[in-house]
Formats: sequence, C-alpha cells, structure tokens
Amino acid sequence: MTDIQLEQVLPGDIERRSFELIQEELSLQGIHLKPENEMVIKRAIHTTADFDYAQNLIFSGQAVKKGIDALKAGAVIVTDTNMGLSGINKKRLSALGGEAFCFMADEDVALQAKEQGTTRAVASMEKAARLYGLQERPLIFAVGNAPTALVRIYELIEEGLAAPALVIGVPVGFVNVVQSKELILTLEDTPYIVAGGRKGGSNVAAAICNALLYQIPV
Amino acid sequence: MTDIQLEQVLPGDIERRSFELIQEELSLQGIHLKPENEMVIKRAIHTTADFDYAQNLIFSGQAVKKGIDALKAGAVIVTDTNMGLSGINKKRLSALGGEAFCFMADEDVALQAKEQGTTRAVASMEKAARLYGLQERPLIFAVGNAPTALVRIYELIEEGLAAPALVIGVPVGFVNVVQSKELILTLEDTPYIVAGGRKGGSNVAAAICNALLYQIPV
Repeated sequence: MTDIQLEQVLPGDIERRSFELIQEELSLQGIHLKPENEMVIKRAIHTTADFDYAQNLIFSGQAVKKGIDALKAGAVIVTDTNMGLSGINKKRLSALGGEAFCFMADEDVALQAKEQGTTRAVASMEKAARLYGLQERPLIFAVGNAPTALVRIYELIEEGLAAPALVIGVPVGFVNVVQSKELILTLEDTPYIVAGGRKGGSNVAAAICNALLYQIPV
Repeated sequence: MTDIQLEQVLPGDIERRSFELIQEELSLQGIHLKPENEMVIKRAIHTTADFDYAQNLIFSGQAVKKGIDALKAGAVIVTDTNMGLSGINKKRLSALGGEAFCFMADEDVALQAKEQGTTRAVASMEKAARLYGLQERPLIFAVGNAPTALVRIYELIEEGLAAPALVIGVPVGFVNVVQSKELILTLEDTPYIVAGGRKGGSNVAAAICNALLYQIPV
C-alpha cells in the first residue's frame, strides 16, 4: 500500500474536470484566450499537457468558424497518418455526413512516391487533391506529422489543384517543419490553424478536428 | 512565391537527419543521455519536438533491455487507445511473433464499464489481464492516455493478476495522471518506463514501443 491519494472523479466527469484544471492553470499564467479559439487551444493542451499550445497556435481570420461550417456541410478530412485518422471522432463526423481518410498506406501512393523519388506523404496529398481537391464538398487537410505533406498542400493550392476549406498544419519535428508552416502562413485565401515552431503531432491534429466537431450541437 | 528556404533532404534521410538535429540540441543544452535509454528518449522527442522528454522519462533498472527481451520473445502489447495501437510498427512486431491489441472499443468492455461504474480503460485492462496477465508469453502494457488504466494495472499487479514484462506508463493530462505514475514507481519487481508529471500521450507510448522494436536487428 502507498499513501498516494487519487482525486475522486466519476468517469463521466474526468474530461470536464480536466478542462477546469486547464482553465485554472491558464488563469494562473495570466493567459486569456480569444473565445472563438478557446476550445481548439484547450483541447490541444488537453491532449498534450503542454501549455505551449496556449501561445503557439496561429489562426487565420475566422478559421474556427470556417472549419465548423465545413464540417456542418459534410466535409472530407484527409490526414497524413493513420494515427491521426484513428484519433478523429468518426461517429460525430459521420453524423454530419463527413468522412475521414488517410492514404499513406495505399499501394498506389507507395508506388507513386517510389517512382517520383518523393515521400509517401507527398503522394498521399496528391491523391487527396485528385479525389477531393476541387469538389463542392469541403476538404479539410489535417497534417500532424509530415512537413513534406504540408509543403505539397501549399503547392497544390498555389497550382490551383486544391481549394481546402481549412488546413490544419501541425506537423512535428526537425527537418523543414518550421518552414512548411511558414509557407501555409503566406496563404491569403486559405483558412488555416497552424502550430508555430517545431511542435505538433498526429494527436494534436486529431484533437483540433475533434474540438471543431464538439462545437457542433448533436 | 516566397523566400522560405527548404532544407534539401532525401526522403530516406529525413529521420536520420532529425535525430542528428535532436542530438545537436541536446548537446547545446548540455544534456548527456544514458546510452541504454538514449533511443527511447530521442524517439519520444522526435515524436513531440518536446525536449522535456530528455528530463522526465524514468526508467527502472534495465527497463529497456527487459522490454527488448520481451519483444524478442514475441510479446503481446496492450494499449489504452486505438491511436496508440495505430502508431506501433506492427510489421516489426509481427516479424518477432508479437501482437498488439486495444480493447477499448470492445462491446464487452463497454458493458463491463457501465455495469461497474468505471471507465472503459479500467475494464479494458482487466480484459487484458484475463487474457494475457499471467501467460508465459510476455505482456507489455503501453498506456498513453488514461490514468485510470494505469491505476488498474498497478492494482492488478498488486493483486497477482498480472505480471507484465514492462509497463510503459505515459498517460497525459490533469486528473490523477501524476498520481497514477507515482503508483507505478512504487512497484519493485515490475520493469517500467514512466513519463513523470502531466506529459505523455498515445503518440509517446507508441514511440517508446517503436524505439524498443527498432533496437532489435531485423
């Protein structure tokens, strides 16, 4: 036996209590979030316990509203990892007529990457653009891992091959991660939510998708 | 066009280059890692870009070696999220005769959690213990999300209902997360890798599993 004391919280109350504790910590740090971005930021912190996300998330004008509108219209979400795909609440998404895909493990993507000497992440974004890039149905890119995917999304937009309703650009890491995000920040007509710097992750990408979904009444 | 310069790195070299940059940053910060723990720590940083993992991972004696030995013997890995399961390199695992499972979405788990007024995470760990808790085949718990799962693992071990070869205890969050990890640190005969404090995540749990797998020659 130990003398470690557990806080008594009912299973259904754990998430609510977590968000209370996040708000307490933000208040202690003197951080005030813009109401429109608050739920996205808090959910990124919830999924990482990393309060850097209170400072490093960058939103284009009305990005949250535009993401929510896209989801309400039955958006397609394309991720760059199966892990990110796995973290998205597909039940909520599909109740709105939406779908989520990751093409990273597809054979045609692997083949194309090999032939073109590029990454599977790049090839998978090209596949996404071919299928959903210019459809009436809104497209949301949710990139939590591969900066090469985000760079290719930037190019596809510049080339007029994709017109996403929202780009969630939160790849994590060390090679071209910061630059890939800076490219997205130069886009003037594309809504984005980007994590500045090196941080991010498939979990953060999924958390941002879910934070948008959970703001839509069931 | 922008003047943002991308570093030219071939697709196959991105990971190697990332680990070089991680080592450079660690050297700059004057941090020297124990060789036996180095690959686990660096992969946790690689997956989060968060250098806190250079300081907050706690290893019981020879935990890495014991985890590797378990994987070589065809271990079962049980996770507490499908996201964590999704991030584990199943190809490498299965080449060693291993398997990975997440029981969180199982109907019997949902039913048991409801009946007992507990979390699905708790019920899923009980299912894991029933199936694999005391088998000859080594069992690795990889908990990246739910502190309730980690608390239940502690109890199952104390109750003699599970004897895992390794507990990867890196749940993330705010309610009982720190306490759940402290419970694991009190175990004297159970190898563990624990992230101290609030940080962790399903991505970190998967990264640690993969860091062990990648140290085993193919």
